[in-house]
Amino acid sequence: MVYSKEIGFRTAKRSCWFDLTRQVAALAVSSGIENGLCVISSLHTTGGVTLNENADPDVELDFFYKLDKIFDRDPAFQHIEGNSDSHIKTSLVGLSATVPLRNSKLVLGTWQSIYFCEFDGPRNRQVNVTIIG
Amino acid sequence: MVYSKEIGFRTAKRSCWFDLTRQVAALAVSSGIENGLCVISSLHTTGGVTLNENADPDVELDFFYKLDKIFDRDPAFQHIEGNSDSHIKTSLVGLSATVPLRNSKLVLGTWQSIYFCEFDGPRNRQVNVTIIG
Amino acid sequence: MVYSKEIGFRTAKRSCWFDLTRQVAALAVSSGIENGLCVISSLHTTGGVTLNENADPDVELDFFYKLDKIFDRDPAFQHIEGNSDSHIKTSLVGLSATVPLRNSKLVLGTWQSIYFCEFDGPRNRQVNVTIIG
Repeated sequence: MVYSKEIGFRTAKRSCWFDLTRQVAALAVSSGIENGLCVISSLHTTGGVTLNENADPDVELDFFYKLDKIFDRDPAFQHIEGNSDSHIKTSLVGLSATVPLRNSKLVLGTWQSIYFCEFDGPRNRQVNVTIIG
Repeated sequence: MVYSKEIGFRTAKRSCWFDLTRQVAALAVSSGIENGLCVISSLHTTGGVTLNENADPDVELDFFYKLDKIFDRDPAFQHIEGNSDSHIKTSLVGLSATVPLRNSKLVLGTWQSIYFCEFDGPRNRQVNVTIIG
Repeated sequence: MVYSKEIGFRTAKRSCWFDLTRQVAALAVSSGIENGLCVISSLHTTGGVTLNENADPDVELDFFYKLDKIFDRDPAFQHIEGNSDSHIKTSLVGLSATVPLRNSKLVLGTWQSIYFCEFDGPRNRQVNVTIIG
């Protein structure tokens, strides 16, 4: 069985997380698939998908502070859109997350949430959620 | 068919690899699934999963030397637990690895092993192994 | 249903992308699987797989310029082959990409292509493409 659907949303800043956990968990229930894999995929090249801390919002601040400091908007970049740093960070964080599904629930650790990782917002964004089982 | 199981283990240092290859290969055989995909997922936010060199142990040393140097414990970090560097490195390395399964064997390159990537040990850790086919 | 096949190719430089999109899309059609997931896996430890910009070739230049600058060939590295930088970048970019399949077509964003990410070329390389649905 395969279930596939897009989720649309708008991010608020140039660099931020957008929490997708509840929407993905709801789709997993809607899918009717009990056991398998759930893949959340960014359809963009300047924003990725990852899992990270869901408790202290300072982790998000530190995450982008450090990534934006190391992968800065280097004046030597050639790409005319001026967002090569966003393309680089997106490939490093990765374009998708794969989460196991057991008894219609996402198998996530206690501290894990699913985040769209915005590196060039604010923008309208879309992820695909595919569930197979 | 879907098979899913957790593996528990303890890591030895703050930054190190923990080789999961043999245990995952054994689960693949136990699963009875011959062809498909095997996903190894970290259930944490300060340790990920990757594939890397299985021959020269100096690769592991160089790997953590460089990552710990670049993504250091920056005094500017806000997160009170003091391990924001671990959260960052985990999202960069990624939370899971997906390995094809063919004739009950993991399709890995000659030099590839499956590693849990510890960035905030020593700790008790858990990965989920889900096999679908 | 599971379909699995290797693709072989030769990369041209030490650091470059090799576009796999067309070959993977053709395999998806050949597989006869209409809906599911397509996983493209590097079988190496000094080259990964990612999705990124397919329009302006300057993104590729900026991508490798910055990664090679930050993850340089550090004189402190111990690994005798002298390519620890390649091992590090490979684990950061990731070993595989997972792309949804819908009506026999890869679900990719407008600007996304599938790239093998070479970090230690020129070399003969191989990826595994596994499609499940």
